[in-house]
Amino acid sequence: MPAPATVPTHDPAQVRTEHDLLGDRDVPAAAYYGVHTLRAVENFPITGTPISAHPDLVVALACVKQAAAMANRDLGLLEARKADAVVAACEEIRAGKLHDQFVVDVVQGGAGTSTNMNANEVVANRALELLGHAKGEYRHLHPLEDVNAGQSTNDVYPTAVRIALQLSAARLLEAMEVLRTAFAAKAGEFRDVLKMGRTQLQDAVPMTLGQEFAAYAVMLAEDRERLREACALLGEINLGGTAIGTGLNAHPRYAEAACGHLGALTGLPLSVAGDLVEATQDMGAFVQLSGVLKRIAVKLSKTCNDLRLLSCGPRAGLAEINLPPVQAGSSIMPGKVNPVIPEVVNQIAFEVVGNDVTVTMAAESGQLQLNAFEPVIAHSLLKSLAHLRAGCLTLAERCVSGITANREHLAQLVGQSIGLATALNPHIGYEQATAVAQEALTTGASVYDLVLAKGLLTPERLQEILHPDNLARPHDRAAATSA
Amino acid sequence: MPAPATVPTHDPAQVRTEHDLLGDRDVPAAAYYGVHTLRAVENFPITGTPISAHPDLVVALACVKQAAAMANRDLGLLEARKADAVVAACEEIRAGKLHDQFVVDVVQGGAGTSTNMNANEVVANRALELLGHAKGEYRHLHPLEDVNAGQSTNDVYPTAVRIALQLSAARLLEAMEVLRTAFAAKAGEFRDVLKMGRTQLQDAVPMTLGQEFAAYAVMLAEDRERLREACALLGEINLGGTAIGTGLNAHPRYAEAACGHLGALTGLPLSVAGDLVEATQDMGAFVQLSGVLKRIAVKLSKTCNDLRLLSCGPRAGLAEINLPPVQAGSSIMPGKVNPVIPEVVNQIAFEVVGNDVTVTMAAESGQLQLNAFEPVIAHSLLKSLAHLRAGCLTLAERCVSGITANREHLAQLVGQSIGLATALNPHIGYEQATAVAQEALTTGASVYDLVLAKGLLTPERLQEILHPDNLARPHDRAAATSA
Amino acid sequence: MPAPATVPTHDPAQVRTEHDLLGDRDVPAAAYYGVHTLRAVENFPITGTPISAHPDLVVALACVKQAAAMANRDLGLLEARKADAVVAACEEIRAGKLHDQFVVDVVQGGAGTSTNMNANEVVANRALELLGHAKGEYRHLHPLEDVNAGQSTNDVYPTAVRIALQLSAARLLEAMEVLRTAFAAKAGEFRDVLKMGRTQLQDAVPMTLGQEFAAYAVMLAEDRERLREACALLGEINLGGTAIGTGLNAHPRYAEAACGHLGALTGLPLSVAGDLVEATQDMGAFVQLSGVLKRIAVKLSKTCNDLRLLSCGPRAGLAEINLPPVQAGSSIMPGKVNPVIPEVVNQIAFEVVGNDVTVTMAAESGQLQLNAFEPVIAHSLLKSLAHLRAGCLTLAERCVSGITANREHLAQLVGQSIGLATALNPHIGYEQATAVAQEALTTGASVYDLVLAKGLLTPERLQEILHPDNLARPHDRAAATSA
Amino acid sequence: MPAPATVPTHDPAQVRTEHDLLGDRDVPAAAYYGVHTLRAVENFPITGTPISAHPDLVVALACVKQAAAMANRDLGLLEARKADAVVAACEEIRAGKLHDQFVVDVVQGGAGTSTNMNANEVVANRALELLGHAKGEYRHLHPLEDVNAGQSTNDVYPTAVRIALQLSAARLLEAMEVLRTAFAAKAGEFRDVLKMGRTQLQDAVPMTLGQEFAAYAVMLAEDRERLREACALLGEINLGGTAIGTGLNAHPRYAEAACGHLGALTGLPLSVAGDLVEATQDMGAFVQLSGVLKRIAVKLSKTCNDLRLLSCGPRAGLAEINLPPVQAGSSIMPGKVNPVIPEVVNQIAFEVVGNDVTVTMAAESGQLQLNAFEPVIAHSLLKSLAHLRAGCLTLAERCVSGITANREHLAQLVGQSIGLATALNPHIGYEQATAVAQEALTTGASVYDLVLAKGLLTPERLQEILHPDNLARPHDRAAATSA
Repeated sequence: MPAPATVPTHDPAQVRTEHDLLGDRDVPAAAYYGVHTLRAVENFPITGTPISAHPDLVVALACVKQAAAMANRDLGLLEARKADAVVAACEEIRAGKLHDQFVVDVVQGGAGTSTNMNANEVVANRALELLGHAKGEYRHLHPLEDVNAGQSTNDVYPTAVRIALQLSAARLLEAMEVLRTAFAAKAGEFRDVLKMGRTQLQDAVPMTLGQEFAAYAVMLAEDRERLREACALLGEINLGGTAIGTGLNAHPRYAEAACGHLGALTGLPLSVAGDLVEATQDMGAFVQLSGVLKRIAVKLSKTCNDLRLLSCGPRAGLAEINLPPVQAGSSIMPGKVNPVIPEVVNQIAFEVVGNDVTVTMAAESGQLQLNAFEPVIAHSLLKSLAHLRAGCLTLAERCVSGITANREHLAQLVGQSIGLATALNPHIGYEQATAVAQEALTTGASVYDLVLAKGLLTPERLQEILHPDNLARPHDRAAATSA
Repeated sequence: MPAPATVPTHDPAQVRTEHDLLGDRDVPAAAYYGVHTLRAVENFPITGTPISAHPDLVVALACVKQAAAMANRDLGLLEARKADAVVAACEEIRAGKLHDQFVVDVVQGGAGTSTNMNANEVVANRALELLGHAKGEYRHLHPLEDVNAGQSTNDVYPTAVRIALQLSAARLLEAMEVLRTAFAAKAGEFRDVLKMGRTQLQDAVPMTLGQEFAAYAVMLAEDRERLREACALLGEINLGGTAIGTGLNAHPRYAEAACGHLGALTGLPLSVAGDLVEATQDMGAFVQLSGVLKRIAVKLSKTCNDLRLLSCGPRAGLAEINLPPVQAGSSIMPGKVNPVIPEVVNQIAFEVVGNDVTVTMAAESGQLQLNAFEPVIAHSLLKSLAHLRAGCLTLAERCVSGITANREHLAQLVGQSIGLATALNPHIGYEQATAVAQEALTTGASVYDLVLAKGLLTPERLQEILHPDNLARPHDRAAATSA
Repeated sequence: MPAPATVPTHDPAQVRTEHDLLGDRDVPAAAYYGVHTLRAVENFPITGTPISAHPDLVVALACVKQAAAMANRDLGLLEARKADAVVAACEEIRAGKLHDQFVVDVVQGGAGTSTNMNANEVVANRALELLGHAKGEYRHLHPLEDVNAGQSTNDVYPTAVRIALQLSAARLLEAMEVLRTAFAAKAGEFRDVLKMGRTQLQDAVPMTLGQEFAAYAVMLAEDRERLREACALLGEINLGGTAIGTGLNAHPRYAEAACGHLGALTGLPLSVAGDLVEATQDMGAFVQLSGVLKRIAVKLSKTCNDLRLLSCGPRAGLAEINLPPVQAGSSIMPGKVNPVIPEVVNQIAFEVVGNDVTVTMAAESGQLQLNAFEPVIAHSLLKSLAHLRAGCLTLAERCVSGITANREHLAQLVGQSIGLATALNPHIGYEQATAVAQEALTTGASVYDLVLAKGLLTPERLQEILHPDNLARPHDRAAATSA
Repeated sequence: MPAPATVPTHDPAQVRTEHDLLGDRDVPAAAYYGVHTLRAVENFPITGTPISAHPDLVVALACVKQAAAMANRDLGLLEARKADAVVAACEEIRAGKLHDQFVVDVVQGGAGTSTNMNANEVVANRALELLGHAKGEYRHLHPLEDVNAGQSTNDVYPTAVRIALQLSAARLLEAMEVLRTAFAAKAGEFRDVLKMGRTQLQDAVPMTLGQEFAAYAVMLAEDRERLREACALLGEINLGGTAIGTGLNAHPRYAEAACGHLGALTGLPLSVAGDLVEATQDMGAFVQLSGVLKRIAVKLSKTCNDLRLLSCGPRAGLAEINLPPVQAGSSIMPGKVNPVIPEVVNQIAFEVVGNDVTVTMAAESGQLQLNAFEPVIAHSLLKSLAHLRAGCLTLAERCVSGITANREHLAQLVGQSIGLATALNPHIGYEQATAVAQEALTTGASVYDLVLAKGLLTPERLQEILHPDNLARPHDRAAATSA
């Protein structure tokens, strides 16, 4: 139920008074956030989910504020005493000590202004304390004039979002590797298990179950590459562009200085965009990342569809593999075990595809020098990253690693398959092979028997052609013939 | 390859000169369209698909022009001679005689202005001929001052689109009924064929194949209801609102008069919107229709997924039903037959869902008193309607009507199913039923045998519980017990 | 950061042991949920959002369990003592007393089984307490055999979701009415404020600001109608269908009895679906609702785009209206106030459109007798309903109700507009009007002055034509002439 | 109206008889396609758009067939005489001589089988003629055994689609460069035109119009990079994998040989995928390309939104720039000129986003060893590429290159802007700047005058701070101070 994002409760008697362009306002005395944050909490009672639900974003904001303070100190724009206090406050935030003070709803108007204001106020008030002052005594250290010095929401917020996304993406990359490894292990385990391949849900030609699982591992390896490439694009930041990228009110050396500190603090490869006006309004890197997450989602979903299909049964389905049971499957059907882990990953995928549409519309709706809808872009992407990560880990640990093969059943299906006719194609011709296939289908006979009965091939030759080694990978027909 | 929508070729030496706000311009002498159309053809070389690719839209435009002329004549705003010529020209268009003169690209800027101009010019020039003048002699009958009298693109175009959509939807409704009937016939044919039902791709409890197919028929019947409701919303038109719905330059009785004639000409239940300003900018009815088409698409796609799954085989799949072969399935695998008809319907569904997103974005992007993006909305909806119709007919005629059941195989699957344990649930309890189910699964034994071996039920009681009539529909447990 | 949905913490020493098909398992002694719920919490550490985040769903589940118990009692299938305890437990849940026990992640595999299990266990354990037993003493009252008697997840869960959606939708309808009223009030306030209408962002013809705001009110009224229609479809439930709609193990009079009680408990018009097999697998009503929510979102977003555009300024934009300031707009630009409320509503709309795609894909992916992905459908729809409601209320209260008009500026824009030429169209002809318009544009002169200078109309006639009453609504040209 | 894709008309008396698994069938004697194609035309009367509507796809198919024949000849698997005839036929197709023979509907079931069959038959029949035989005398050269030798639809079709996409993408890249150049030229032309920047549609701080247009050019340059990267992924092909990637029936050296020839024929950098099983089922590269096309679309749409907004007017809007008139804008409003070119590009963008959803769903729906829905993926991507190309060219040539600036009006807006207060922020502090801004807003006074009147800065200092060079790019505040 949407309600204002939870603001930690305070004794209503204990307040301090702050001021903004709308007038005076009481703020809980214990709160590190201030009047701007409070207005935003009241203005946006939308999802009930506070910024702190995305800890990577809180950490990233603290990194940006810290880097800015360090750059301002270097350039003589912020006195060292103040800068040091800001740095210390930011380090506390990065350590997770003040996350509960980031209370504005994740879905908010204002292009992230309220998130930036929230960060400015928390940093300022904690820094004030560290300097021996009370919260709210902004004449000693001001949220805007000092903590936000040389900055604008319009460069701070996109930069923080880009860093948060990279932090989250790094964790997704790890989870994808866990899943890839799980599939690769199964590929090895099932290396020699011959089975029927299927195209268009119709029996096609033989392959190994190992090949089937190896494909999932390869797919994940490729997707990890794409995700890494998309992350690289996030390394280009617009810090120093201030309001619209013209850098108004920023020191000419500020951008490089701040970017340098930020790179060092985060350990990420960052660079200042070449055209800050373009970089300030451009959502391209977010749309690209969203597209890649959608790609990952789509392929994960396809893989889960396959796992569910191959384990369809236990008696009236393909029943080629068994997924490990992780919970009772039904409140009415005794003994029923369902593929609940792949099913939840499917749903994550559908959510990610939906998020991509949200990101797309938000990106398209930017106007002139800024995109006002970056909060929903950030929220959608951070959700997609986190849920995909959870899905990969759950799938690896609670499903893939426990999969077993019904080897006998698989062998049986290959033996009775009409798809074997395809392997005879180069030896007896497409038209004759078609005739055999159709007769097998009609009479229920096996392709093997029909070919011998018709004298189309000798038993030895037939045996050789249908040898697993020859079926599951390209081989030299001539060589085979001469063998 | 996008190229200017095909303009019928003409002898370049044979031209007439027309004039617009950009200056003079030669138009092919034989062309019924004029300078405005020509500019638009040159401005929009986008898809290569001309308006005439949507014949329902051409017919609808002619109906609107005819109704407007009749209303203007009634109100004394257009002299009878002119009005009669316009009416006659429109009737020729409605009969399909001048469709090739509607040459502007379907995807065009200008909120449909170029489509309206194209209609005005074709009607005017044909009417001029009927009046004994040459094409282009607009002093006798003017495309704007006469044919477009009392009108604006902003009321003509949306009205024509709404009529075209209703004409197309009527054909889709018919095709859905053909498909519904095909499913219902199969439901009857398979009424007594017992089979295993499946949930989450796992064997669940028995049902009949007839019930399975009946569900598809019911689904289509419900979707037809929804489509009819969506069409009803299209009957509210904004004719008479002129530029922005204020009716500037329109006679106060024009709206009702034109709407009356239009309803009579089309046979559709039409009414003038209560608030013409709102109606002129509102895309709600289009978004609603698009949502319903998406609903139809999604359910058709699910049905086709089921058909493909149930016919998976022939040897290594569920193999419960057979789809009729309609073409060879493979260039390499002899005898392979694929479910190509359901596959093409799936693809239509994916296209319709994509079109819905296009419509959604276009609708969201309207600004102030008008939505400039109605052409892509109209194009997307007309495509969805036409392709869904084609899909329903193809599916009915080339697939569903030829489906056969593998009755023996189906019966066998029921007999060996663990899902039978569910039916014993109320008789032996969930926990005991679970134990039996698990033992059956582990040992390969049948539920039937285990229940008897353990003395959990008498043979007679067991037989009765598992009777098809009792399995496939609710029954009175007490009654059964007492029987 | 996704983590297992918060399970209330318990003293690890205080446990009870429960059993399921995977073996024994310790459950916190204080927990009302049991082993099935615990497994699900461990299996689905996806979003960190528990079922209880959707209180309407928890209430709906309790209603279904209560109605089922009452029906079973009526039919003699559950002894009165047990049934009464179940009823009492459900009433406590409906009163909000045990919401924190609904701990499974909202995004879960298993088609809602874990949600149903969570409900069964909480109801059973609370009922056990009410009967004087300890939690976990299921021999006295069993979560599956008693609480879930005659039910299956596959009929309970969809039914509960349908009820939850109706409860949520009712609140959205109220919020939409609040917003509609706010727009209607402004329409009245601005009834006489003449302004330029715009099509395609170009000056068109005059209208009143009241007409502009009235359109938003009308739009909302229509959308409310559509939402009501979509809700009506949710009233058809599949309770009694059990596993796949065949009603296996359900008493033949159970469906009607349970539905009757459920209707009485919820006050909603409910009915049992005619074909329970179809109803069990059919996601049509959800897709329909989603499409309607998308429609509402799209139109709200368009409206917010307009509000932002009309208030663009304060000096270098259209500056026709002023949105009330609700917070400081910028961390760097003093005095800047931004349209943050419409901006947050835009973002909600983008989210709703994304959710619609999620719902669409989930619906399309259902297979055979069930859709396993209903949890993400329910989650997406409940989010959309709640966020749209929040958006409507915020928009009404913090934006629309405080909007003011810049009346002088609006009048000035009308006076200098070239769009006035349109009004002269019927009096001096389209071609002459075009010439005047172009001259005005080129020279900077006013249309009014040029018409007089050229002697095209007398001053009196001109004045009359341009009178506000004549500009903003259809009028009888002849009457005007004779006046 | 969907009808079977146009099959060139033939004299019904002139036929030849062909045979497939469904029986005998008459084919028009003049047709180069055969029975398989004819069945497909009848099975898929869906969109009315034949394969030949995508000439890049026809050319790509011919390249693949030619490369395969050359590889088979090299490996001694196809006699030289036959191979040479196939090569010659393919070269004719590549030259555009037989495009009208590619008649199957673009939206088709069968995973592209019918497209491959169409290609096999056209190549075979033309090669037969070149060998001195009549069409249909397949005993001399067989569509499947010779033309399709060593191939399967499942490697031929994806490979051809990847090549076609690269050919189309190359043309889009050129068109994007044309548009980029047009924006860059305007950026130079407007280098010195000072204007107000806007964020969230509110006046922000000054910038130059050149900076605004430069951003669009930079954006396009970056998007071109992304498109090039996406194309590189298309270079990995699965030729040689045959039915499911196991290479059954393919010579072990065939894949490399065919890929080598194909690279030489097309001039594209191609390589054989490392895991052919994965490559055969993987739609990743298509989803990636679609995501990038969506990115391009979204940013183009945003740019067009900006162009329409900046040219809003002529009197009652921002009126900062003028778009060149390309057609009369209204059938009722004289002199009205609309931004029809940006509007059509917006619509293309909406279509591309919709196509992306279609591609996404089709990709997600692949099952096991193959994706049956590649035809709609190919169709959607080829449409998006072609329409985006058309949009870029039209936008460059008919809009951007003719844009002019209203320099005086722009200067005036800067002068009276409250946003100037931001530039004073570092000199007089955020709170004092806010007070000045608010007073200016309330009283209508200029920021400039108020600052002087209040003695906050000397006239010289103020002049210097507000100098264009200082406003539009970062500058050293200290340096400025000391100057």
